[in-house]
Amino acid sequence: MDEKVLLGHGSGGTMMRRIIDEVFFDAYGGEELAAGNDAADLPLPAEGERLAYSTDSFVVTPHFFPGGDIGHLAVCGTVNDVATSGAAPKYLSCGFILEEGFPMEDLKRICQSMADVAKEAGVRIVTGDTKVVNRGHGDGVYINTSGVGFIPAGRVLGGQYCKPGDKVLVSGTLGDHGITIMSCREELSFRADLKSDAAPLNHLIAEVLEAAPHTRCFRDPTRGGLASTLNELAEQSGVDMVVDEMNVPVKDAVRGACEMLGYDVFQVANEGKMVCVVPAEESELALEAMRANEYGTDAAIIGEVLPCPDDRSPRVSIRTGFGSMRILDMLVGEQLPRIC
Amino acid sequence: MDEKVLLGHGSGGTMMRRIIDEVFFDAYGGEELAAGNDAADLPLPAEGERLAYSTDSFVVTPHFFPGGDIGHLAVCGTVNDVATSGAAPKYLSCGFILEEGFPMEDLKRICQSMADVAKEAGVRIVTGDTKVVNRGHGDGVYINTSGVGFIPAGRVLGGQYCKPGDKVLVSGTLGDHGITIMSCREELSFRADLKSDAAPLNHLIAEVLEAAPHTRCFRDPTRGGLASTLNELAEQSGVDMVVDEMNVPVKDAVRGACEMLGYDVFQVANEGKMVCVVPAEESELALEAMRANEYGTDAAIIGEVLPCPDDRSPRVSIRTGFGSMRILDMLVGEQLPRIC
Repeated sequence: MDEKVLLGHGSGGTMMRRIIDEVFFDAYGGEELAAGNDAADLPLPAEGERLAYSTDSFVVTPHFFPGGDIGHLAVCGTVNDVATSGAAPKYLSCGFILEEGFPMEDLKRICQSMADVAKEAGVRIVTGDTKVVNRGHGDGVYINTSGVGFIPAGRVLGGQYCKPGDKVLVSGTLGDHGITIMSCREELSFRADLKSDAAPLNHLIAEVLEAAPHTRCFRDPTRGGLASTLNELAEQSGVDMVVDEMNVPVKDAVRGACEMLGYDVFQVANEGKMVCVVPAEESELALEAMRANEYGTDAAIIGEVLPCPDDRSPRVSIRTGFGSMRILDMLVGEQLPRIC
Repeated sequence: MDEKVLLGHGSGGTMMRRIIDEVFFDAYGGEELAAGNDAADLPLPAEGERLAYSTDSFVVTPHFFPGGDIGHLAVCGTVNDVATSGAAPKYLSCGFILEEGFPMEDLKRICQSMADVAKEAGVRIVTGDTKVVNRGHGDGVYINTSGVGFIPAGRVLGGQYCKPGDKVLVSGTLGDHGITIMSCREELSFRADLKSDAAPLNHLIAEVLEAAPHTRCFRDPTRGGLASTLNELAEQSGVDMVVDEMNVPVKDAVRGACEMLGYDVFQVANEGKMVCVVPAEESELALEAMRANEYGTDAAIIGEVLPCPDDRSPRVSIRTGFGSMRILDMLVGEQLPRIC
């Protein structure tokens, strides 16, 4: 096998065939990829279920970082997006845009990482595509994944269903992914204490839904962080939200880094956290279910949903440690480009 | 709206929201995108149908060319891949990787083109993602689409089902897309006569299946051209194939360009052509159905399937205009990088 990716690996000919067989198939090939047709042919579930469908591209730099890599992220990100609908994620597609000269060893490592986390999540990569761009028109590797899952009959989740009185939960500490990537790029000294939280959360979501079946919605606070996620939900439902800063779990190292760098931890990206809004009477059950999962040990109830007055648009506020209130705005520009 | 794409448009914050609303939603937004959740929530068909699922990334340069653009291609390519399974394509995902500084007007034009051809094909873009990479790490715009369709109960197509005696059809002239792109890049003089054939072929496929229900398989001869497609099918089915060169439709301008540039037209990419293998007794019906479709007026029966002797691997041959035979090999390296 060639040591580096060449333009010919994207040709549609025998070189492309070789990279598919020796890299992609070797890492995560199954019967659908083996069939070698242009579309995977897959069974559908029982009548009454619905389709959940999502996509994400991944352009993170560096490609490898403490706690994960771009391949791990590409599987987790789409698994989590599909799972937020209450679906069991089932199938993934995977499109690579490789830059000429990218080391084949790195590509293999990325594919293995995708295979491992796909297995953990219980999803299969069933269809794919490979393009190679000439040197200077990429950054080694970009990955797009899309994902399909099936939503059980009668299950309806969505950001539009939050109601005053509901509790807001988060499955763990904020900011780990964003600050880890940042520290890798800048080679900052606090780096040793940190790793990305990237993780597949579909099992955690299923367990929360088992414990708290009236959960309104899940959303993963990736780009734009908790601030963007809560503002989106508040707007979709036409409600206010208030978050108690003291209850929001943040690691000391992340808090320190944010203070030093001038970041608002509420706007920093997470890749292994889930926000969920649950009716008050089921919120403790949801919390217990989260904490029982390996990726939810630091879960907390961080706030609640309030009615939004008629005379203004929905608002998310934070009650600070000093008891004062401040408005939690959505991120406006770009804080940390290419975080995922 | 900003005139150029900025890093902040990929931030997850309000700038990203604006590009989604003012560019993507404006072009092809429907109820699923409007719902604003992380995964689209979609109905499934009746029990017994199956899922067809495919993906492709598009990195073609230039972005705009006679007969289409990267957005048009991104919809057609995935629609066609899904349709080759005999499915009715239904939903698309769309992931953009934009380079900082890309003109917003170009992006809008691309999105409008996606919207128009999606409408023609009868598919809807139901979920998407936007990433922005810093200047010098992309080439304006890369697009990934994935597509989902449903395969009617009892319909089974695939490259593994070709049988000796079957006929090989192609839905029109070869090489139009590849040579058009090539001529745009090089500003060659024959450019005026050519345009890309990029087109959605799902309706054509449905019409062929109506006329010739025992059709074995469809495949679109994109990268690697007819040569790669036929070699793939021959290998999947363990059969030989022979193609009559005289029967293969090629436009004069394309033939001339190939001669001048030293390309084998059988290895040049097509984006609006379909190869199909049909039992002999249904082949004339399939041909009529193709020719009745606007994208199949130049369709032809170009060859047939033969048994492969036990003592060697499957082989595709061409009977030339002079009556001699030559072997039609798969493309080995790269002929025209970034053709799609």
